[in-house]
Amino acid sequence: MHRLAGPNARLIGKPGGLHELTTPAIVLDLEAFEQNIGVYQQQINLHGLRARPHSKSHKCAEIARRQIAAGAAGVCTASLHEAEAMVGQGINNILITSPVVGAGKLDRLMQLLKRGAMVAVVVDDREHAASMAAVANQSGHVLDVLIDVDLGMGRTGVSNIESALQLVNVVCDAEGISYRGIQAYSGRVQHINEFAERDLVYTGQLHFLSALIAALDKRGLKPAIVSGGGTGTLALDCREGILTEHQAGSYIFMDVEYGAVNLRANDAVAPFATSLFLHSTVISKNVPGRVTIDAGLKSFATDGPLPRVIAGAPVGATYSFFGDEHGCLTFPTPTDCLPLGSIVAFVTPHCDPTINLHDYLHIVRHDTIVDIWQIVGRGVL
Amino acid sequence: MHRLAGPNARLIGKPGGLHELTTPAIVLDLEAFEQNIGVYQQQINLHGLRARPHSKSHKCAEIARRQIAAGAAGVCTASLHEAEAMVGQGINNILITSPVVGAGKLDRLMQLLKRGAMVAVVVDDREHAASMAAVANQSGHVLDVLIDVDLGMGRTGVSNIESALQLVNVVCDAEGISYRGIQAYSGRVQHINEFAERDLVYTGQLHFLSALIAALDKRGLKPAIVSGGGTGTLALDCREGILTEHQAGSYIFMDVEYGAVNLRANDAVAPFATSLFLHSTVISKNVPGRVTIDAGLKSFATDGPLPRVIAGAPVGATYSFFGDEHGCLTFPTPTDCLPLGSIVAFVTPHCDPTINLHDYLHIVRHDTIVDIWQIVGRGVL
Repeated sequence: MHRLAGPNARLIGKPGGLHELTTPAIVLDLEAFEQNIGVYQQQINLHGLRARPHSKSHKCAEIARRQIAAGAAGVCTASLHEAEAMVGQGINNILITSPVVGAGKLDRLMQLLKRGAMVAVVVDDREHAASMAAVANQSGHVLDVLIDVDLGMGRTGVSNIESALQLVNVVCDAEGISYRGIQAYSGRVQHINEFAERDLVYTGQLHFLSALIAALDKRGLKPAIVSGGGTGTLALDCREGILTEHQAGSYIFMDVEYGAVNLRANDAVAPFATSLFLHSTVISKNVPGRVTIDAGLKSFATDGPLPRVIAGAPVGATYSFFGDEHGCLTFPTPTDCLPLGSIVAFVTPHCDPTINLHDYLHIVRHDTIVDIWQIVGRGVL
Repeated sequence: MHRLAGPNARLIGKPGGLHELTTPAIVLDLEAFEQNIGVYQQQINLHGLRARPHSKSHKCAEIARRQIAAGAAGVCTASLHEAEAMVGQGINNILITSPVVGAGKLDRLMQLLKRGAMVAVVVDDREHAASMAAVANQSGHVLDVLIDVDLGMGRTGVSNIESALQLVNVVCDAEGISYRGIQAYSGRVQHINEFAERDLVYTGQLHFLSALIAALDKRGLKPAIVSGGGTGTLALDCREGILTEHQAGSYIFMDVEYGAVNLRANDAVAPFATSLFLHSTVISKNVPGRVTIDAGLKSFATDGPLPRVIAGAPVGATYSFFGDEHGCLTFPTPTDCLPLGSIVAFVTPHCDPTINLHDYLHIVRHDTIVDIWQIVGRGVL
């Protein structure tokens, strides 16, 4: 087995090799993927934003490289572990979008700075800011810091102007850390399917963000960076012009979840195309009207909608989970069947945790596997 | 970062090192784990069974080695990929418990035989049996085969005596494959919580299995191996004496799901102890009555019950998912809080897909990390 490309490495470059892929395997349609990167960067450029796509969606250094080549300033990671994986592959401009807490993690963070990586972090607590400053100062580094602002989800961040101002003051006063701006990401809003409703909720949140920025500005603390946004709010972030840096992740793939989200007002055609698929094989067919396939809850994320059949099965076939390693494909008529060994392709349910289950992305142009990219950041330490 | 032991490698052997673990990290209590292996093997020996524990639960070669050292004949794997990972680590006696379908996978299977591994497979289709035989024959190998029998779940296997007999005949007649017996695993029954109800359902399924074995015996085709069973049916499998080989997996860990299953009739104390835990860190505390921790749906399986707090938080604290990398810990009283950096320990919801999310098992005796074992079989290709 090829250590860095997995058991399908021998298929790279072979015409029609896609049909010989051993499964379950995730497949990236290169054309759709490249188109998505281009469309996103074009939007970002048009509105004077900077792109800092979120690599939590892909955890793949080669994708980060391509996003940066297209114009992104760097990438976001959700965790220190992901940042380490990216730096290990030469991606050196990173914002870790969750607080890095604990002595062991701060040590590891200092190691990244020592290696010359430009890693910025977020903070939402005064004592934590002081600890980070002490550690960085002792290591002889200056750590770039964004104040994490809570737009209403209550997960991380400061949620009122008073706390934010106090925290900015702590950060500005401490040696070892440098105030670079704020982060304001709104998670749940991204998945409000209807544009008008999403617009209404998000605009309300952005009013708070604008007031905070004005309050900072008044005190000579105007944030140089205002980082946030996602695939779901891209059109709104472009229209509102409050963010300076945009963190979308899923736009490169488009999953079943985002397929249901109306990304623009009066949108006839979605701006992004589905590029990510999972291929699975029929392994048993002894029950009329259905077959068992080799993709279950260790292949697909289970937190979102169900995977959607896209090719290789009768129209109307539906997927259901059938244990850790198995899925059930139910046909609309009981006389339908598929031979053993048939390949069935799916749109993935929720792309981030689905990618996280896999080691390799099979890169496809038409039906040829042109490359295999490793998902270096998977695993959750 | 230590490539084979992850970022916590430096803590191995350090007294109290458990408290310095960077998280999210899964932790194995060695004492409880060793006790579980011992209790299981003792039960198996007492009833004249052979143990072939299912490594789909742990995907860890070191655990397989210990199960074999305790008396197991070998291990089961759910997939060819897991079998390759095990053989790569020197575990050479394997039953792959799902049909291995497709030319690419059969090639890979032949590679395992060529390396000298004793790998047996299951089959539930006559044409598939013939294809496997042809491939094995052409490679100059004889592949050991069990007939997969469906006890009622309808996932894989033959579900009636007539089909089973026809399939056994195909296997016996073909060169390149060797009829070694049958596999009869009943999945959903394992998780019927009440012993009496589980007993009733499973006993009904075993009547069919006995009838099948009798029919085979009558034709001179008595199966040498009857492989099946799980943690939930262990007591019943021991009592009934129909299986020759037992495939339990979760008994080594015991998760929230199995914690709810009454494993023996009139059982005051469960035979197995919880040995597997996830440690997580408090990373944000700006909302009264709850904190955000660094373990979300990339750390815990989402298909089963919720993770259960076991240590490090006020009594009554409950977990809820809060996105890919975050969990929410809600306290019973709004004035409760935990400092940033606090470690909270959980019993894992469903152990198999939880383990599959992680790269390293941290092996703990009291509060010292005595070793770190790699989860070599994770990833789903």
